[in-house]
Amino acid sequence: MVKHLIIGGVASGMSAAARLRRLDEHAEIIVLERGGYVSYANCGLPYYIGDEISDRDELLLQTPESFKRRFNVEVRIHNEAVAIHPDTKTVTIKNVLTGAQYQETYDTLLLAPGGSPIRPTIPGCEHPAIKTLWTIPDTDEIREIVDSGTVSTALVVGGGFIGLEMAENLRFRGIRVALVEMAPQVMNVIDPEMAALVHRELRKNNIELYLNETVTGFEPLSGGGVLAQLGSGTHLEADLVLLSIGVKPNTGFLADSGIQLGARGHIIVDKHLRTNKPDIYAAGDAIEVVNPFTGKKTAIPLAGPANKQGRIAADTINGITTRCYASTMGTAIAKVFDLAVGVTGATEKFCRDEGIPYKSVITHSGHHAGYYPGAAMLSFKLLFSPETRRVLGAQVIGNQGVDKRIDVIATAIKGNMTVDDLTEIEHAYAPPYSSAKDPVNMIGFVAQNILDGLVRSITFDGVKRAVDEGAFLLDVRSPDEFMAGSIHGAVNIPIDILRHKIARLPHDKTILIFCKIGVRGYIANRILSAHGFTSCVNLSGGLDTYNAVYGL
Amino acid sequence: MVKHLIIGGVASGMSAAARLRRLDEHAEIIVLERGGYVSYANCGLPYYIGDEISDRDELLLQTPESFKRRFNVEVRIHNEAVAIHPDTKTVTIKNVLTGAQYQETYDTLLLAPGGSPIRPTIPGCEHPAIKTLWTIPDTDEIREIVDSGTVSTALVVGGGFIGLEMAENLRFRGIRVALVEMAPQVMNVIDPEMAALVHRELRKNNIELYLNETVTGFEPLSGGGVLAQLGSGTHLEADLVLLSIGVKPNTGFLADSGIQLGARGHIIVDKHLRTNKPDIYAAGDAIEVVNPFTGKKTAIPLAGPANKQGRIAADTINGITTRCYASTMGTAIAKVFDLAVGVTGATEKFCRDEGIPYKSVITHSGHHAGYYPGAAMLSFKLLFSPETRRVLGAQVIGNQGVDKRIDVIATAIKGNMTVDDLTEIEHAYAPPYSSAKDPVNMIGFVAQNILDGLVRSITFDGVKRAVDEGAFLLDVRSPDEFMAGSIHGAVNIPIDILRHKIARLPHDKTILIFCKIGVRGYIANRILSAHGFTSCVNLSGGLDTYNAVYGL
Repeated sequence: MVKHLIIGGVASGMSAAARLRRLDEHAEIIVLERGGYVSYANCGLPYYIGDEISDRDELLLQTPESFKRRFNVEVRIHNEAVAIHPDTKTVTIKNVLTGAQYQETYDTLLLAPGGSPIRPTIPGCEHPAIKTLWTIPDTDEIREIVDSGTVSTALVVGGGFIGLEMAENLRFRGIRVALVEMAPQVMNVIDPEMAALVHRELRKNNIELYLNETVTGFEPLSGGGVLAQLGSGTHLEADLVLLSIGVKPNTGFLADSGIQLGARGHIIVDKHLRTNKPDIYAAGDAIEVVNPFTGKKTAIPLAGPANKQGRIAADTINGITTRCYASTMGTAIAKVFDLAVGVTGATEKFCRDEGIPYKSVITHSGHHAGYYPGAAMLSFKLLFSPETRRVLGAQVIGNQGVDKRIDVIATAIKGNMTVDDLTEIEHAYAPPYSSAKDPVNMIGFVAQNILDGLVRSITFDGVKRAVDEGAFLLDVRSPDEFMAGSIHGAVNIPIDILRHKIARLPHDKTILIFCKIGVRGYIANRILSAHGFTSCVNLSGGLDTYNAVYGL
Repeated sequence: MVKHLIIGGVASGMSAAARLRRLDEHAEIIVLERGGYVSYANCGLPYYIGDEISDRDELLLQTPESFKRRFNVEVRIHNEAVAIHPDTKTVTIKNVLTGAQYQETYDTLLLAPGGSPIRPTIPGCEHPAIKTLWTIPDTDEIREIVDSGTVSTALVVGGGFIGLEMAENLRFRGIRVALVEMAPQVMNVIDPEMAALVHRELRKNNIELYLNETVTGFEPLSGGGVLAQLGSGTHLEADLVLLSIGVKPNTGFLADSGIQLGARGHIIVDKHLRTNKPDIYAAGDAIEVVNPFTGKKTAIPLAGPANKQGRIAADTINGITTRCYASTMGTAIAKVFDLAVGVTGATEKFCRDEGIPYKSVITHSGHHAGYYPGAAMLSFKLLFSPETRRVLGAQVIGNQGVDKRIDVIATAIKGNMTVDDLTEIEHAYAPPYSSAKDPVNMIGFVAQNILDGLVRSITFDGVKRAVDEGAFLLDVRSPDEFMAGSIHGAVNIPIDILRHKIARLPHDKTILIFCKIGVRGYIANRILSAHGFTSCVNLSGGLDTYNAVYGL
């Protein structure tokens, strides 16, 4: 009887255990989990703290007992693998409650140890009011403090997914929340003009946002909280601090194992999730994955990939090698108050850093037909290759329908589809769900127009330079819209009278055309091009994007 | 100056007009529309009658004046093309208000006349209480009658998209609604076990459903309504009757034109939307399109394809032939009270009729993580090829997230993707939006398991025959679930004790395993297979699908 040992009992480990059992009823399967819980809802933890999820039992998807009954898998909680010995096919295991150690043999070993939140070495950061959120006990601790009513101010350090979700959920509990982020923006997986929309939403919901800012130290306060000292000299009092500055892989126990690790300690695997040692496989947050655009190794700790990897590792272990884990493009989404913020594939930053040729467009459109009640605006950024016309990535922000467009684009990237394909996607249309031309079709059309040379676009961050170089700023919105504020120096000629006012425009300057979202600007662009204005450009995303970054 | 004439001012015609202008600022563009409105929100009309859309102006997206101002296109409403003359490149046009006729010349002609609802030749069907819904005046008439408060009972004839939307919206107005459908099910574009879910929703909302039923005649009633006589002998009184039994193309005016028409009167075009006559193009509901699975010509009147065709016709007219209109797979969605009902690609009926090899699976899963509040069940049917593993089609029904999964599958079909690809789609996951394995991934896994021979499945309609042939019915749900009702003759062995009760099962019979949705059944199937039960099958979609069709 073959014996499978799995180190780690959360996402990828448990996914693998269940699949291993379904593929082989007779194998012995043992899961080692150093914590006290398996298969818990890690992505739900912030919502339990926010009391959006009010029943703690909802977080516990499986217990060792339920897993034994259903899958005949032995789950040993509080059992930590402290060393593995590939040569003898054994693992040294410590019972973390008793400290006792023992050896376990295996025929195949799956490493699914996951990651842990990074705790920085900031002076004073061992204070009991300073927490990280990763496990059920972490959650219990934080929820207990919050429930006790002693937390009136909280500081979240790090504006990634967990940081933002915690900021929101702490606000839901009536707590005053400050968020400190080292970078100029939160969510470093999206581009700055999209992050600007997130900043606006955070501020609207009274999150005090400190960007380009670091925490340099904590001092204890007599009331039980801490005083956080920021790099800028600012001080912030907080009854509770949540550190969410990143995750490191739990691979310390592999140090002397001969298992090959990457530069940041992640396990190196092939596409079938095999390590460099025979009969040892790895999956989940602790492994390196391949970026689909560069082929380079990277680490992307996300629940979706982890779960899928667990299943594939089980397939590999059972000799099913017709499939593999090819790459992770990093599709992700977060709820930020009334916004959903989603991203898939390459960002502009990524393309620049990697030297990948790209073009980008931004649209703003209703998530369904405007005439049906409840249409919400989607801000949609698309990246695509000017050479192959292939879709490279997208970012979508809005109240409704964000996840749908991200999933469609993720599918299109997976299928190596082009912007032309996007225009042809035959989506499900009825007024409550979409428009006759979905925003996905529309952004495909816009990209086509750019690639076909029908319009040249300029991005928000190119306006200043264009103006400095003498561009003529043409606002084609209505007079009412113009009066409410425009870019300094702009001339207003509404689109519907532009044909009659063409004589007012200079032929010797670049004409930088803009409107609210970019549609009227595009039409104006076509009109002027046809009248011999060879150097006109349209502001991508219009004033909606420009103002999100710069205000007015 | 080139002169483009467009016949038809709604979806495809106006989409073409706007694109023609953007491609050529200097062309003369004339749109002929026989009705009094252009670019109106056809898909919104039922919702205005239901007062979901309360402002009539919302329906009027453009006027001839606004279109003139924005696009410098001349729109002639109340102008009907009554004949075209390709040899002289002229069109005979009638002013429908005055009856006067005139000729108009063209350089290029786009035929976008759309369709009209079929009015059957049922005795008595000219009664003024019997309506069809297609245009703004139709809508005004029906809304006025409904607003007047004289309608307490309504009869909808035909259970397609418009029929269902009207049934719902008339219910919203407090009207008692009966729906008569000739076929055994509503929505003939979905398969029967999925339609059963729609029937349940309709009945739950007090729509009186008459399936397998026809209307054979109408008699006037003294109160202003009609008495509808049904084929079965039943009589139904109705103050208002809405006929929605289908649409025919408005191509009568082409009879003597030499334009090639299909068997049902649709205009035949090539993939660039050119007719058989030089400089004459066609788009929208009046054309034949290609089915992507068979390559055969068909007609699919839908707003999305019509709008996209209009744009492509304009491109062709301007010499842009790098793109084309390849095919229509018939993606569609309807809101039916609390359900969204979506479909894309091939159905089981279609595959059978066309002799396309297929397999199908059904899953039921939450539209997002179950532990996050508000998860709604999705019933998801996937069709795929057992030879190429390619995705052929899907049907999804549920309260939330239906449109997303349909759009993802439509994108996957567009990209020639396989069920294996579905398992690898890297979707946007956070608890409010999805699960770590999205229902799209999950149904891909189920399809893989079937193709890989890990499980054999049986569909709801195969149960009776299997039982007649002596199958052993094994219900692996919990005793409580079993006590609440199961398939007659089933034996209950809960999944979690199955391993200990295997001796109770017969080796000489097919074991038909089932549970609520199919997941426990699959696990049981794997256990029994491993114990030498070579003839076990799992009920696809479980009792949830079975009961939707047969009740219990």
